[in-house]
Amino acid sequence: MMRMGDVGRKVRFGVIGLGKRGMWHLSELVQMKDVEIAAVCDPWPDRVDQAVRIVEDACGFRPDAATDDREVTGRNDIEGVFIFSNWESHIRIALDAIRSGIRPALEVGGANSVEECWELVRTSEISGVPVMLLENCCYCREEMTLLNMIRHGVFGELVHVQGGYQHDLRDEIGNGDVTRHYRQRHFLHRNAELYPTHELGPIARYLSINRGNRMVSLVSVASKAAGLHAWFTEHRADSALAGAPVHEGDIVNTIITCANGETILLTHDCTLPRPYSRGGRIQGTRGIWMEDTRTIYLDGISPADPSYWDHRWESDEKYMAEYKHPLWKEYEEYGLRGGHGGADYLVIRAYIESVQNQTQPPIDVYDTAAWMSVTALSEHSIAMGGLNVPVPDFTGGRWITDRKKAEGMYSLD
Amino acid sequence: MMRMGDVGRKVRFGVIGLGKRGMWHLSELVQMKDVEIAAVCDPWPDRVDQAVRIVEDACGFRPDAATDDREVTGRNDIEGVFIFSNWESHIRIALDAIRSGIRPALEVGGANSVEECWELVRTSEISGVPVMLLENCCYCREEMTLLNMIRHGVFGELVHVQGGYQHDLRDEIGNGDVTRHYRQRHFLHRNAELYPTHELGPIARYLSINRGNRMVSLVSVASKAAGLHAWFTEHRADSALAGAPVHEGDIVNTIITCANGETILLTHDCTLPRPYSRGGRIQGTRGIWMEDTRTIYLDGISPADPSYWDHRWESDEKYMAEYKHPLWKEYEEYGLRGGHGGADYLVIRAYIESVQNQTQPPIDVYDTAAWMSVTALSEHSIAMGGLNVPVPDFTGGRWITDRKKAEGMYSLD
Repeated sequence: MMRMGDVGRKVRFGVIGLGKRGMWHLSELVQMKDVEIAAVCDPWPDRVDQAVRIVEDACGFRPDAATDDREVTGRNDIEGVFIFSNWESHIRIALDAIRSGIRPALEVGGANSVEECWELVRTSEISGVPVMLLENCCYCREEMTLLNMIRHGVFGELVHVQGGYQHDLRDEIGNGDVTRHYRQRHFLHRNAELYPTHELGPIARYLSINRGNRMVSLVSVASKAAGLHAWFTEHRADSALAGAPVHEGDIVNTIITCANGETILLTHDCTLPRPYSRGGRIQGTRGIWMEDTRTIYLDGISPADPSYWDHRWESDEKYMAEYKHPLWKEYEEYGLRGGHGGADYLVIRAYIESVQNQTQPPIDVYDTAAWMSVTALSEHSIAMGGLNVPVPDFTGGRWITDRKKAEGMYSLD
Repeated sequence: MMRMGDVGRKVRFGVIGLGKRGMWHLSELVQMKDVEIAAVCDPWPDRVDQAVRIVEDACGFRPDAATDDREVTGRNDIEGVFIFSNWESHIRIALDAIRSGIRPALEVGGANSVEECWELVRTSEISGVPVMLLENCCYCREEMTLLNMIRHGVFGELVHVQGGYQHDLRDEIGNGDVTRHYRQRHFLHRNAELYPTHELGPIARYLSINRGNRMVSLVSVASKAAGLHAWFTEHRADSALAGAPVHEGDIVNTIITCANGETILLTHDCTLPRPYSRGGRIQGTRGIWMEDTRTIYLDGISPADPSYWDHRWESDEKYMAEYKHPLWKEYEEYGLRGGHGGADYLVIRAYIESVQNQTQPPIDVYDTAAWMSVTALSEHSIAMGGLNVPVPDFTGGRWITDRKKAEGMYSLD
């Protein structure tokens, strides 16, 4: 088994989507000795030029440049492609890649429809080309520690888990150029749990979703959309945004029910003032953990009086240290690198090493489809006035039987 | 207008329900010079005997003793009756009282059915006898301060509010005598938002429910019921409870949509280990407050960098001091008394003074019906697999027009 920092077989990749996030990833990729960036692509030539320079400066050669993503996914000399483009194109580009035998890695985002999630699954199954979703939060230190705690039974039988994408994006949305901003148009035109995977990805692993459990239904309810309008009126009075109708409710709560009876609460909260939080909460028959307070309460361990009126929270600090995930122990010895507290590096390496070693990626096509589909399903639920809608079983029943666990050091199983 | 501590016209009351909560209230009532307890009632004679002694010791006379509540609600010499009995009897006893021209005050609990809420409203309307729900949390210092902040526009336009009854009751439920324990049988037999009003009462006032706004629909989703079974197995292995089926899901989340587009999230969380919290959260276009962290963030006031990536929470302490409610300022000068941080006294006095002065109580029959109905409606929603169900307009359209505001110092308007 490879150790962190080992240089593997050199693999050629394409990179599609060179906005802020794509450029950030590219700057990390060019530093990896076993990665060769064969082509870079974005509809905007200024971005492509900049990306070519980044690769040339770091690696000493000019990658091919494209403004049409099909020029990259149509190649026969690359093994993988990174898809960092706008949300609505992730699955379409991934499908093009799979059909060329290229393994796609998708940056996160929600699906446009449930149908495209099915198409992703079917096309991957028929071709045998694996897909990976680059959900960095699955590799965050805190989330991996919690996964480890859950595997050790610290919380007993899990009953309820919640999380959110709670990030005041008013300034970012309000400053974005309509034609070049991947988020803005979704907030103006859709009403859905637009961005579920940062919290749902880790939660799905806590609850063994697609590995003995699955999401069976969900209901979403959206509040009114008041935040962006108020902000545009105050801060962008001279722009077209000031009068733009906003469809996305400020707070979208989604409750998912799982086959084993657990519930998941997701909160999308991006257009009202607030500090950032993913609002994590884990509850089982033996304890509870809360992200916002960084506290834990464990039955029979944390302080309580016998009448159960005086349970007291503990700081989660010592538990976080005690249950640090083995991958993170190794990572800290090796040295953290890259963005988002080091998690970006881990998820990117998990994908690269699955390509190098021709193994199944730890976040596979069934996870990708199930997690991304929540956006489209929540859109249905809201449109139908808060109807509880079924979540498809993208595994075709394989969630019940023991699916083959992901191999390698980056396995989340 | 009366000032706090003023002794008003002496009024005769009955007291029905002498469990732990009823006895607690009785001990406070007998200290009030303008209150005469004419009768005490409970199905259990041992409790009645104890209550008679409490009144006799404090007031120097023996109240009438009854084991059938109809002996109290059938009297023609009392003006009001306190209903502290088990949850399922509150509305039935209130109806008996109204029909005798006696003003009932109901301790909190959820409704058995939507129909009985309608019956309460219609009977009160036809007879002209007002009803009050004794929701003490509406009078808590924190909730009244927040109400005052909202009225001053601190949070801008309200968009989303949440709260919960999050209280580990496993020991209380597990220790209770089945025949005498008002909570236990509800957890064994029902699956619903059993106890919504502690958080919903204050939230309803924040959102002007029944006064220009109303709840239009709700959806409830329950997790599996694992907590009580695990606890009974470990702690009550020799009792019948160890094998008892439990219907109440450990976590019941309910999302309510209001006519003006706000959403309310309620969480019932009573059978898993955790410290107590009502989990309050208030969000508007200008700010957010969170109970669990005791923090606030206000747009343009709290610290933030211009990129909106570094909003920082502030302690809510100074805002809580600045916006203290006028009633609480007066109360602190007068001196706090009674249970639950002084809130019990306020809600009881609010009722008593509405009887003395023949005025509308601040929490009226429409509030009582709407808040209590959430239990029955959530039960429907869960039973139908997470169906979004309509919330009746118990006001018959009066919520749109300007309803007469409650008079007196205890008004929550």
